[in-house]
Amino acid sequence: MSISASEADDSVSAGELSARYDNFVVDLLGSIAYGELSAFERLANDARHSPSLSDRAVLGKMAVSEFGHYEAMCARLLEMGMDPELAMAPYQRMVDAFHERTRPADWHESLMKAYVVEAITEEFYAAIAEHLDESTRAAIAAVRTSDEQNALLAKLLKSMLAQDPRLSSRLALWGRRLVGEALTQVERIGAKHSFLVGLRPDGTQEAAAAEVSKILSTLTRNHSKRMSQLGLTA
Amino acid sequence: MSISASEADDSVSAGELSARYDNFVVDLLGSIAYGELSAFERLANDARHSPSLSDRAVLGKMAVSEFGHYEAMCARLLEMGMDPELAMAPYQRMVDAFHERTRPADWHESLMKAYVVEAITEEFYAAIAEHLDESTRAAIAAVRTSDEQNALLAKLLKSMLAQDPRLSSRLALWGRRLVGEALTQVERIGAKHSFLVGLRPDGTQEAAAAEVSKILSTLTRNHSKRMSQLGLTA
Repeated sequence: MSISASEADDSVSAGELSARYDNFVVDLLGSIAYGELSAFERLANDARHSPSLSDRAVLGKMAVSEFGHYEAMCARLLEMGMDPELAMAPYQRMVDAFHERTRPADWHESLMKAYVVEAITEEFYAAIAEHLDESTRAAIAAVRTSDEQNALLAKLLKSMLAQDPRLSSRLALWGRRLVGEALTQVERIGAKHSFLVGLRPDGTQEAAAAEVSKILSTLTRNHSKRMSQLGLTA
Repeated sequence: MSISASEADDSVSAGELSARYDNFVVDLLGSIAYGELSAFERLANDARHSPSLSDRAVLGKMAVSEFGHYEAMCARLLEMGMDPELAMAPYQRMVDAFHERTRPADWHESLMKAYVVEAITEEFYAAIAEHLDESTRAAIAAVRTSDEQNALLAKLLKSMLAQDPRLSSRLALWGRRLVGEALTQVERIGAKHSFLVGLRPDGTQEAAAAEVSKILSTLTRNHSKRMSQLGLTA
């Protein structure tokens, strides 16, 4: 997205808008970078709940790919001349608190968390990225869990549920808790997104709020689909 | 190393020796594989003690490379038609107990543990690998922390020690505890190594014990050198 003065409120100069846009991007990349670093550590740790060593490596492998995403975000920030550490810092407390509130009690919950939270997070960032310049969008698009990884998680979850039908109600409940926490998190970051919408020609406050709520309902709908695929009620 | 009947005790058939050699290799690769998987998880976890996010990524990066080593060992075991999980299982309790006994209390200790333990472990496996066939040796040689990684750890440790001279005595003590625990660990795995020495033409029990003790003293000497490089007494 390139921003020219004509597109925007006359009271704000083009230079100021462009600076605000850059700030927004840095902030966004910082939040993704910290989220990925944190996901790396949590997944590596949650992996230890696994019943077998080969299962354990499933989350380990996922953790390793999150670390790669973290590095990619840092590289992008450095390319922009920004300090990744400064960009990440504002998100540290919020993300850590999210993980504290959603600490898996066992292997089933660990796997479910990996499956649910990564998907929501990635969809959220992809939705926001649609409004951004091409190279930022490409950088964010690269931060994606592979389809094989997701298919493997779904397969493991399904086989766990098939083996122990009593798990269904517990994991359905856990899924609801995870999605609730994840959407709350996303909403907080989304509050900053309204500024971005505000930059567009039709960018009223109402349009911004509508945009964020549209993203949230898409995320919820996709989450329900993923739960149904596992045979769980969302 | 290829084993022919003529080289070995007449009371043991060549087939039996070859089977025992294969068992030893599987056992060794299993111990390395589990050690690396476990190091991956511990480093990822210890990383959270770091004072800054960029420091945190140093151990994270190291953790990621340990995971690659784990995968390489599993691939080698699968190539040999073996189940990595079965090969790793006998080492799980021993390695986990080692990490429980050497749980770092803070960032300084985490960094020191990464620096000291990885080096000893790698030197130990390299020493044992000298007696093995070429492809096993090559597989084990690939399981090495990069020189840059080690140089970076040493640099961080040195700068920490320069900033806070009171750290020296604490870290020297911690280094001694780590090396003590690591050598005990290595000795246990080394006990199995005596079997390997026993396969060689000059392979008496005495020769085996001498070989293991030679390896241990080399490891101790190299550890002392590393400590001196940090300005610490070993």
